[in-house]
Amino acid sequence: MENEFLNELYKINQSCPSCPSPSAVADFYEDLLGVLFPDFEKKEFSSFEAFELHVGHLRLSLREILARNPERGNSDTHSQTDRFFEELPIIRDLIASDAQAMFDGDPAARSVTEVVRSYPGFYAIAAYRVAHALRQMGVQLIPRIIAERAHSKTGIDIHPGATIDRSFCIDHGTGVVIGETSHIGAHVKIYQGVTLGGLSVDKADAEVKRHPTIEDHVVIYAGATILGGQTVIGAHSVIGGNVWLTRSVPPHTKVYYKAALTDSNGNTDTIEFK
Amino acid sequence: MENEFLNELYKINQSCPSCPSPSAVADFYEDLLGVLFPDFEKKEFSSFEAFELHVGHLRLSLREILARNPERGNSDTHSQTDRFFEELPIIRDLIASDAQAMFDGDPAARSVTEVVRSYPGFYAIAAYRVAHALRQMGVQLIPRIIAERAHSKTGIDIHPGATIDRSFCIDHGTGVVIGETSHIGAHVKIYQGVTLGGLSVDKADAEVKRHPTIEDHVVIYAGATILGGQTVIGAHSVIGGNVWLTRSVPPHTKVYYKAALTDSNGNTDTIEFK
Amino acid sequence: MENEFLNELYKINQSCPSCPSPSAVADFYEDLLGVLFPDFEKKEFSSFEAFELHVGHLRLSLREILARNPERGNSDTHSQTDRFFEELPIIRDLIASDAQAMFDGDPAARSVTEVVRSYPGFYAIAAYRVAHALRQMGVQLIPRIIAERAHSKTGIDIHPGATIDRSFCIDHGTGVVIGETSHIGAHVKIYQGVTLGGLSVDKADAEVKRHPTIEDHVVIYAGATILGGQTVIGAHSVIGGNVWLTRSVPPHTKVYYKAALTDSNGNTDTIEFK
Amino acid sequence: MENEFLNELYKINQSCPSCPSPSAVADFYEDLLGVLFPDFEKKEFSSFEAFELHVGHLRLSLREILARNPERGNSDTHSQTDRFFEELPIIRDLIASDAQAMFDGDPAARSVTEVVRSYPGFYAIAAYRVAHALRQMGVQLIPRIIAERAHSKTGIDIHPGATIDRSFCIDHGTGVVIGETSHIGAHVKIYQGVTLGGLSVDKADAEVKRHPTIEDHVVIYAGATILGGQTVIGAHSVIGGNVWLTRSVPPHTKVYYKAALTDSNGNTDTIEFK
Amino acid sequence: MENEFLNELYKINQSCPSCPSPSAVADFYEDLLGVLFPDFEKKEFSSFEAFELHVGHLRLSLREILARNPERGNSDTHSQTDRFFEELPIIRDLIASDAQAMFDGDPAARSVTEVVRSYPGFYAIAAYRVAHALRQMGVQLIPRIIAERAHSKTGIDIHPGATIDRSFCIDHGTGVVIGETSHIGAHVKIYQGVTLGGLSVDKADAEVKRHPTIEDHVVIYAGATILGGQTVIGAHSVIGGNVWLTRSVPPHTKVYYKAALTDSNGNTDTIEFK
Amino acid sequence: MENEFLNELYKINQSCPSCPSPSAVADFYEDLLGVLFPDFEKKEFSSFEAFELHVGHLRLSLREILARNPERGNSDTHSQTDRFFEELPIIRDLIASDAQAMFDGDPAARSVTEVVRSYPGFYAIAAYRVAHALRQMGVQLIPRIIAERAHSKTGIDIHPGATIDRSFCIDHGTGVVIGETSHIGAHVKIYQGVTLGGLSVDKADAEVKRHPTIEDHVVIYAGATILGGQTVIGAHSVIGGNVWLTRSVPPHTKVYYKAALTDSNGNTDTIEFK
Repeated sequence: MENEFLNELYKINQSCPSCPSPSAVADFYEDLLGVLFPDFEKKEFSSFEAFELHVGHLRLSLREILARNPERGNSDTHSQTDRFFEELPIIRDLIASDAQAMFDGDPAARSVTEVVRSYPGFYAIAAYRVAHALRQMGVQLIPRIIAERAHSKTGIDIHPGATIDRSFCIDHGTGVVIGETSHIGAHVKIYQGVTLGGLSVDKADAEVKRHPTIEDHVVIYAGATILGGQTVIGAHSVIGGNVWLTRSVPPHTKVYYKAALTDSNGNTDTIEFK
Repeated sequence: MENEFLNELYKINQSCPSCPSPSAVADFYEDLLGVLFPDFEKKEFSSFEAFELHVGHLRLSLREILARNPERGNSDTHSQTDRFFEELPIIRDLIASDAQAMFDGDPAARSVTEVVRSYPGFYAIAAYRVAHALRQMGVQLIPRIIAERAHSKTGIDIHPGATIDRSFCIDHGTGVVIGETSHIGAHVKIYQGVTLGGLSVDKADAEVKRHPTIEDHVVIYAGATILGGQTVIGAHSVIGGNVWLTRSVPPHTKVYYKAALTDSNGNTDTIEFK
Repeated sequence: MENEFLNELYKINQSCPSCPSPSAVADFYEDLLGVLFPDFEKKEFSSFEAFELHVGHLRLSLREILARNPERGNSDTHSQTDRFFEELPIIRDLIASDAQAMFDGDPAARSVTEVVRSYPGFYAIAAYRVAHALRQMGVQLIPRIIAERAHSKTGIDIHPGATIDRSFCIDHGTGVVIGETSHIGAHVKIYQGVTLGGLSVDKADAEVKRHPTIEDHVVIYAGATILGGQTVIGAHSVIGGNVWLTRSVPPHTKVYYKAALTDSNGNTDTIEFK
Repeated sequence: MENEFLNELYKINQSCPSCPSPSAVADFYEDLLGVLFPDFEKKEFSSFEAFELHVGHLRLSLREILARNPERGNSDTHSQTDRFFEELPIIRDLIASDAQAMFDGDPAARSVTEVVRSYPGFYAIAAYRVAHALRQMGVQLIPRIIAERAHSKTGIDIHPGATIDRSFCIDHGTGVVIGETSHIGAHVKIYQGVTLGGLSVDKADAEVKRHPTIEDHVVIYAGATILGGQTVIGAHSVIGGNVWLTRSVPPHTKVYYKAALTDSNGNTDTIEFK
Repeated sequence: MENEFLNELYKINQSCPSCPSPSAVADFYEDLLGVLFPDFEKKEFSSFEAFELHVGHLRLSLREILARNPERGNSDTHSQTDRFFEELPIIRDLIASDAQAMFDGDPAARSVTEVVRSYPGFYAIAAYRVAHALRQMGVQLIPRIIAERAHSKTGIDIHPGATIDRSFCIDHGTGVVIGETSHIGAHVKIYQGVTLGGLSVDKADAEVKRHPTIEDHVVIYAGATILGGQTVIGAHSVIGGNVWLTRSVPPHTKVYYKAALTDSNGNTDTIEFK
Repeated sequence: MENEFLNELYKINQSCPSCPSPSAVADFYEDLLGVLFPDFEKKEFSSFEAFELHVGHLRLSLREILARNPERGNSDTHSQTDRFFEELPIIRDLIASDAQAMFDGDPAARSVTEVVRSYPGFYAIAAYRVAHALRQMGVQLIPRIIAERAHSKTGIDIHPGATIDRSFCIDHGTGVVIGETSHIGAHVKIYQGVTLGGLSVDKADAEVKRHPTIEDHVVIYAGATILGGQTVIGAHSVIGGNVWLTRSVPPHTKVYYKAALTDSNGNTDTIEFK
């Protein structure tokens, strides 16, 4: 490596603001999840005081992460941390409703404990709930890091900016994409490979609602793609597998598409993608 | 955080049974894989005794994991561990047949060593083989943790309850889902995005066969979805890409679907999803 | 475990050549990325000398990895390492062009910094750039390990043998597969679930071009599959979502397919998969 | 090992109260010393907030240690921790006076920085200051662990119960023993191998003053032994090397002893042990 | 560094037999001590099975250490390990008698727990008991490593070859040296700086008894030196501080020496070194 | 802790120059010793290249340590490192002569290997050799840190400034002190508790020779103290135990002192401190 290039890299390094390491952020999230849901990763505490100290460390971790955040401007990390911890009961309640929804929706699940311990959908939705709460406080980068950690671990990509109501269920999940300005109602269930995306990739639209609205009690089967900020899926609708939707449907609609299936015996069939 | 909420979290923590940490379980699996297939992650042993000691540690790790399993009831972790280690030659033989099938099926693979070292399909199928053997011994949660580790690392989601015969090949694999009551014969090959799923999400059906049967020598191309516990794909059949099947097909059937493809030059084509 | 089996495993272990551990390879890649793009994971250096020493450690790491490579034959790891580090300015320039393309193509991206820090597409393409440069020097296994690390972390599977020009953009990315003999021009953009694959799985074709050619300024939407070594997508073409292509299209072509969409109100629609 | 013995050991283990691990206690002490005297082991803090967070962790560490202390009874670890941290300015001032005294007393010392960084006497006296402050708050075991850590590292054994005024200097130090009820004035200097011990080893005397009193500005040379709770070394006295004292001496006394030294040339000399 | 020297070092390295690392040996000793005396460093075990597994790891550690021992010849590490663990009840009983003796002999000690947790004499004597038991089985180097660990940590240097009966007490201890062929009876108490040494340094005397015999109930005060393989200190004798003995004394003897002590006021005193 | 005090500590921290951490310095020393004498702590190298890389890391470690040295001024750490590594053959040769002398002088030693592996004298003298070589290059603080590491581990305190010729032997060693301006010839042997010290503690004497000169083939027994920069112990002299010397003796002198020893049977003896 030429010395000149080494110098250039050094200059780039020096001008780069310090920032919280992704692994510190991920550790904070996983430790927090273990406090809210001990089933996730059980820690042994010999006394209430030991537990209280553990939560104290968690607070310090969040403050450290916030303090290293280059975009934080003049925000007071003390009060940001306080505010986040005050919202924890609400966050916990939402995640608990999601876990229950995932248990109810999967015959293979033996208990809510199993959902908390091993379901990628649980991990990803809980990460979204935490990331979203931080973003509501004006923090940008840290929620993204939490979301990408969950994306990396589960293949489920939920933007922290999305708005999602309680009792949200994702089954399997690999390949799910939920865009920044999506709105999802309560009791919605989606399967692997579902995309709630945008039609435009114009940077000028960054502030516009670019992703769909999904009303309460909608089910969206695997591989379906729903695009556009004006697209509204009415409550209690069912969107079939592999359906591609760029327009709204009223409540209680079932959408599926039929395709011609042919086999080597010469039989042709029309299939509905459920 | 209010003191009341802290107290509530503490109570939840205290009432939660201890369980083996996911990372301890994953380490056991990866260490075991390295013993069975040194190509996976080569360790240096200066003598047979050193190797024997390493295997001794592996046995202790499994016993520790089994002993921390909250669901184990009265099972004797000594004899469970013995039984698992007695089955290792069979497990190894099955995984070796899978590795060979993956090498045979991918022109880009230079050697079986390369498959063992770097193919996600190898990692996920070997995890299934280990998880399935534990589940056969009546262990539930630990196999799920192994399976979710593989899911997280590879995007391939094979339920430990599935029944899969030898020489199974998964190519690329991201997005593959194989449900709990699937039956897969020998010499089957599947591509990324294939789902072997259920039609019902009724909890009452938990004990029923809800996922399909795939007979020997079947090939299923990328993105195909096969659903339902009564669906049987006959031996030597080929299921084309993106096909959506909810009924059985006899042996030696080729199933594909045709779709109209249009380009901006006004040409329309019928395509077969291979 | 029978003693006989233990002996057999020991023999397999002893006959297995040592090789660089996957985690050492992944650490090298991530440390290198942090040097080239401090935004990725900022390290603090109190002086130029401290930075220079860090780069010195990085060189030693690469030499160690190359020295443990069982396939290296007689290659001189000193000069291989030198050669790789001399190419770093070019590698960095290419990755910078990719980061810019990803920023330009995503309205949700607030800055190139955010892309570097948290976009899986950035991680996977940068891994490809590094892996490809090593493969150009005749190294085979190590590039595969880097690629599988990125695959595991991002769900994006780019073979190090592929040829990809500058300003390459992958959005979301889960499920992307780019085969060994693909050629991709400059300013190409692809979405999640896109496959550039082969038609043949005959081992005899290992040396043949089996994957498609994508010319400059092509956009390929989510879930599209393009197969075959003779397939050429002409410059400035747009391939719609879920399109399945096994033949070439001329420049400036838009390819999409229409499907019949039916809802429960009895309405049928023809949809274009964009 | 017989099962019976294993059972016995288990019972002993279960009946043993948990206690802070010696390494956690030692880490607390060393981290605290680094905060009070950055020369000891310099840490990099990018901002005041980062430093404040580090001190916050230090507080939590002390609370954790106090909370695990089996002897603590009903003491409130919050207020104990507060009280200790409020005393830190005084503790720091005392240790600074000791460091200055050690620099002034050793021609080989180039700077106070060198004393802080590498003098065992500094390490041991600072450990005493911290341990003594904790003992003043009624904590018993933790000060002993700090003292034994310093003893192990430096060979200097100062009981946390001793009373030592400012500007205390220990040179080299290996073998120094300072008993629990010793009183040492200001500006005292002692060399390696000095013992301030007791005459009685009767457990009934545990609450009695069993160790000597050393008044201000006394110097005690290497290997001297001073014993007994009623023994007072008057201010400005000098106790020569290897002197053995069990009675008091008035201020400004020089005590040495003469011994006959004979060499192989037949010369005999009377030597004074300075 | 010249290449020639590098080559020479490499050759030396390759011809050096592998051996257990000192830290692995020290960890084994400290873990064992924690099992025998949980007060030393309390570990939490949630069940008897967890404890049993911990002891299982300890056995494996010893076997690993023994297997790496270059001098072991053909010894069977299985049976060596078994034999050592069978002797543990006796070893524990001896160490418990030592702890009790140290508590009885020090007014400053509040409990046997405090002795176990923080007394260097306890650590060093326990290390001797373990090292001696291994040496009795014909192991040479590993006991030396345990002994040097204790020497480094406590300043107490007891050769594993020494023979020491029960209820042995060392107070403070820095500088104590106990030679390879010493014999020490029951209920002996020694203070810091005591040497039980040899008169000859002739390698030809390696197999001869070169160090003294100390009979039951002897007390030896600080700094006393007793030399020679024929020197026997009769039972119930008291050896005063700094006494230098190279001949035997009968039982119930008190040995001390008187020295002239002079102070600056012109007073001369005869002192007895107790 | 008051905010004001926290601010003060922060200011002290910020004004403190960064410096190499003591543990990094100690690790460098121990790794180097393992390279020079694999018996010390054997590492496994599968090839010459692996060994060469290890030495490469060692060079980088030294450069890192030198680069962090606050006192280094404008020195070029590249050339300092080169110079030190060029001197390694000489350093190794000196340490090998010391190891041989320690083996020859101790009947309990079974092999030079045992000396290297477990003798504190070997550790401390080797540390001195390395520290002295660095000090010869003008480095001050780092040699002190190496020396204090050895002091802490062995109780042997050799100032890096001392001048010591080959084949130096220290037996047991706890409590040995060798001052900054001592000169020690070849084939000298000293026992535990020996001090080579200064008479003056006047800071004005810092640049003066303050410590004694010991000529070739001198033996100094345990506890002897030799003081003063003008004191010369002539070649082949023997200094008895506990002797206190502040004047020179000619070559071939034996110095010992006699003391009156009295026992409880009324016998008085004159003893010679050998």
